Amino acid sequence: MVGVVGGGQLARMLFEAASALGIDTVLLSEQPDDAAVAAAGRVLVGTPGDLLAMEALAACADVITFDHEQVDLAVLSQLAEHGTTVLPGVAALELAVDKATMRQRFFDAGVAVPDFEVLDLRQGAAVAMAAIGRVAGRAGWPVMAKATRGGYDGKGVWPLESKEAAAAAVERSIASGASTLLVEAMVPIDTELAVLVATGTDGTSVAWPAVETTQVDGVCREVLAPGHLSADLLARAGDMARRAAREVAAVGVLAVELFATGGEVLVNEVAARPHNTGHWSIEGATTSQFENHLRAVLSLPLGSTAPRAPAVASVNVFGPADGSDPRRMLAGALRVEGAHVHLYGKEARPGRKLGHVTVLGDDPDDARRRAWQCAGALGTLPPPGVRLD
Amino acid sequence: MVGVVGGGQLARMLFEAASALGIDTVLLSEQPDDAAVAAAGRVLVGTPGDLLAMEALAACADVITFDHEQVDLAVLSQLAEHGTTVLPGVAALELAVDKATMRQRFFDAGVAVPDFEVLDLRQGAAVAMAAIGRVAGRAGWPVMAKATRGGYDGKGVWPLESKEAAAAAVERSIASGASTLLVEAMVPIDTELAVLVATGTDGTSVAWPAVETTQVDGVCREVLAPGHLSADLLARAGDMARRAAREVAAVGVLAVELFATGGEVLVNEVAARPHNTGHWSIEGATTSQFENHLRAVLSLPLGSTAPRAPAVASVNVFGPADGSDPRRMLAGALRVEGAHVHLYGKEARPGRKLGHVTVLGDDPDDARRRAWQCAGALGTLPPPGVRLD
Repeated sequence: MVGVVGGGQLARMLFEAASALGIDTVLLSEQPDDAAVAAAGRVLVGTPGDLLAMEALAACADVITFDHEQVDLAVLSQLAEHGTTVLPGVAALELAVDKATMRQRFFDAGVAVPDFEVLDLRQGAAVAMAAIGRVAGRAGWPVMAKATRGGYDGKGVWPLESKEAAAAAVERSIASGASTLLVEAMVPIDTELAVLVATGTDGTSVAWPAVETTQVDGVCREVLAPGHLSADLLARAGDMARRAAREVAAVGVLAVELFATGGEVLVNEVAARPHNTGHWSIEGATTSQFENHLRAVLSLPLGSTAPRAPAVASVNVFGPADGSDPRRMLAGALRVEGAHVHLYGKEARPGRKLGHVTVLGDDPDDARRRAWQCAGALGTLPPPGVRLD
Repeated sequence: MVGVVGGGQLARMLFEAASALGIDTVLLSEQPDDAAVAAAGRVLVGTPGDLLAMEALAACADVITFDHEQVDLAVLSQLAEHGTTVLPGVAALELAVDKATMRQRFFDAGVAVPDFEVLDLRQGAAVAMAAIGRVAGRAGWPVMAKATRGGYDGKGVWPLESKEAAAAAVERSIASGASTLLVEAMVPIDTELAVLVATGTDGTSVAWPAVETTQVDGVCREVLAPGHLSADLLARAGDMARRAAREVAAVGVLAVELFATGGEVLVNEVAARPHNTGHWSIEGATTSQFENHLRAVLSLPLGSTAPRAPAVASVNVFGPADGSDPRRMLAGALRVEGAHVHLYGKEARPGRKLGHVTVLGDDPDDARRRAWQCAGALGTLPPPGVRLD
């Protein structure tokens, strides 16, 4: 029995993979109508910060894993001390949930990362401003500030245009009670990439091919496998991601997001769980990220990550501005040849991520065109900055 | 909301497909631990013959469809009369659940079928024996007797070696209260094939490529797409199956099982639901039988049935004789390159169908070898009569 903390779409797709393999599942969901509830074998309602709820989950499950990183490490440590198998391990989660710790660890291990400073806000504004000044001195303004915890989909990230803006941000962060802040050079991004690595309990790992991703305002809009990047760049991204994965040593799927900048490949962030940039693998790879995450946390052999088609395009679906529900637009989407539609069973709200679509093909442009055609039928059009030629 | 009657593995795999599409589901299950319960959105416990239980299902669902044919047509007719959408329709189910009616209908429509007689047992043993004598007179002994309702996986089928054996079978059938019996020529089978056809509410249909199946004692053991059959034979099987599907006019998936005999292709049986011979389509085709069944009953456009690989092999997994549980042997099975393992969450009992495995490949013999290797790791070895060269 696999226990999953968090009832979002990642848990839902994990449960779909578990059902196929005949693996029993139990979900700890915050709400009784979360996306994953309908697909879970059993459901407990509670929060990951509630020790009693987590103990109830642990009592059902042979292993506990996660839909998201909003976890309480103290609670997890207690469970682990009392014999519950928590994967990715508590140490790996501790690393992965803290952008500053993660960045420093990668830097120390020689993983290429954007130039950065970690600000210890407890030492006061002046010390913090000096550190920001060092980044700006090396890389120029603007610099990027990132909350070290809790950010996702572009939240918790602010560009700082000047010393004055930086001072205001430092004041706000101190006032909010944050103890650290990550400040980094604004990298001129040529392309964004992602590599997913699955690591077993025995330390063996497999990686899916590097993919090209398009983020708009920090939110992933499309994923192309392999996209239009050179084989050399894809290979270097794969190598760098595998180095990063060895550092984190997270059992299960680790998503590594990278930048290509001026011929260099830099590791930006990691997430120790299945990831939006890996949804293409459900139909596009021999083994999906969800199946390999399950295999990993259950100490089962990892499956082949080989792509199933020369080109795979995956596009996210969001709630349209008029509040309409993509579930009512399924017919139009399913008319698109070869379109695989995933909807997460979430209530439609404008801008809310509600699903994704994947198309396999021989030609990358054709697959991408059909994926956007399908997303368009569900009410999601290419945003400014995403061009379909 | 799709309502499904029956909690077996077909319902489970239907729910996995529904979850991906964001389609809500409700199950009417006879037991609270049936295979499909863990994958259903909501679960009601009750029997398909219980009008109250069926009304409760109808109250939740926009459409009711089926995991099996053990349905009560009178109850379904009542639901349909009161406005519930039941698909495949009651008329199609009435045809499909009765082998004698089905056979006569196909014969009348010019669909090639084995030589047969329908015995009306209410007219007494002498009339029945005369009809059996006519089949034996045309085709020789032995002849095959088939219960007209309720048979599956080789149950309800008896070879009759002689006039004396036939007389005994007729007496037994009359004593059991059966009113009809189907008697047919024993066809010298060169190969068994299956073709699945999905038909929408608007009458449009799509068919998956014909597959080669191996049955042992009436139980499907392996499915090869396309197998080793000639393109001509596959094409003729496809044509014959589509003719049969037009006669049944069942909305959703119709499985057509055929024989190849001396260059002829004969339709043997049909089932108006997803079918064991179509499990290969989950990974092996662009759209699986389960997704297209859902699309059909929800009046959504049908998806492409194109194969995803030159060769697909699917092998059924049964409970080993020693009572061991394939779920405990997953590690060995997942070690096989490219193996897709499906276990249905059913309690292991010797001989019980517990799952299937599918392997895609470029070479049919290699895919088949790996599929049996994977099934073997789960405790299912090729039975006598299935040779792996």
